[in-house]
Amino acid sequence: MEPTERTRRHFQEQLQALKERLLTMGGLAEESVRLALQALVDRDPRLVDRVTAADHPINQLHIEIDQRCFTLLALHQPMAGDLRTIVAAVKINTDLERVGDLAVNIVEAASRYLSHAPVKPLIDIPQMADIAQRMLRDAIESFVTRDMALAQTVLDRDDRLDGLKTQVFRELLTYMLQDPRTVEPALDLVLVSRHLERIGDHATNIAEDVIFLVSARDVRHHASDHPTTPEG
Amino acid sequence: MEPTERTRRHFQEQLQALKERLLTMGGLAEESVRLALQALVDRDPRLVDRVTAADHPINQLHIEIDQRCFTLLALHQPMAGDLRTIVAAVKINTDLERVGDLAVNIVEAASRYLSHAPVKPLIDIPQMADIAQRMLRDAIESFVTRDMALAQTVLDRDDRLDGLKTQVFRELLTYMLQDPRTVEPALDLVLVSRHLERIGDHATNIAEDVIFLVSARDVRHHASDHPTTPEG
Repeated sequence: MEPTERTRRHFQEQLQALKERLLTMGGLAEESVRLALQALVDRDPRLVDRVTAADHPINQLHIEIDQRCFTLLALHQPMAGDLRTIVAAVKINTDLERVGDLAVNIVEAASRYLSHAPVKPLIDIPQMADIAQRMLRDAIESFVTRDMALAQTVLDRDDRLDGLKTQVFRELLTYMLQDPRTVEPALDLVLVSRHLERIGDHATNIAEDVIFLVSARDVRHHASDHPTTPEG
Repeated sequence: MEPTERTRRHFQEQLQALKERLLTMGGLAEESVRLALQALVDRDPRLVDRVTAADHPINQLHIEIDQRCFTLLALHQPMAGDLRTIVAAVKINTDLERVGDLAVNIVEAASRYLSHAPVKPLIDIPQMADIAQRMLRDAIESFVTRDMALAQTVLDRDDRLDGLKTQVFRELLTYMLQDPRTVEPALDLVLVSRHLERIGDHATNIAEDVIFLVSARDVRHHASDHPTTPEG
């Protein structure tokens, strides 16, 4: 086997390893969001600690993936499609790390929420969490399988999440206006719904990167309406 | 002049142009934050529209800078230091685009706030905005000048911002508990303070990237305590 062929094979193996690490990272981030919501819904303070502790491996993986991307760029100087994949991986990695942080923010709010009587049965917030988690899973899946149609469904679901956030906000406001005792815990539920919305935003970012990666078409900011052609 | 020398010079010119575009992007993002706060403090609805409109050029620049980074990576296959600079630029660009979005989020909250009587004189929130804007400016400056000491001061200021956010939250909670009429507008002030905190987080991300870039030392997640050595 020629050295160039060996180098090429090594590169492809490393690229595959990178994708697998991103899948692992996505799985960890999604699991943290799931546990954070369970802490809130089941009023289980032990889960608060588990989510907080789970942020450390996510952060370690964030650094490792970043380093893998950098190494692939530096040693192999990939062209076109592979280059695009690695730059997308750098961005997706950042998005997933923030999702891990948001899971911690959710349990911080949940932890305060548990010190009060429940404001109301939680229905819309768990539904928001389900949507956000599935968006996240499908966004990463669409990256690994280069599935543009799946990435598009992620974008389509973001409006539903925003709608639920507005609904949650209005309902909680009504409680707060009627009974001052609900102000403090309801505020924390408002924050949880905002954190879930932001998790959906990160899934949307990832899906947009995938569409750009696969189609070389930039769907961010309706870019197709306003093409930019910077000098190279 | 040899072609390689010409190529090299062209690369350096393009790298310089990239830095200048990031400076422009940073200036636009910072100006949006400044105007958003002015809309809130001066109760000026015209500024709300100005900030909303200002998001379009920021988004266009976001796409242009991303494209510039990609072109530099694809055509010039830079090594080591230059590669690190361009990967940092990809990330910083994303952070600045989010800051623009957060300025829009601030005027959305400000716009609702203006439809109510003021809850209180605004002191801590403008102070938070000042700190966040300066963090942002210094973070970008530290990237362009490769000034690690300046980047470190950005990290140091993040705690102050978090402290103010907590203080704002507690004070507004007191108002809400005492007078239900303040619940709705006070909630919007809480959201503004969260948006400002997140702008500080983005400045912190940029400063961390700069320290990594200049020192090749990863300060994220206290990485130096737990070195990772992925296979290359």
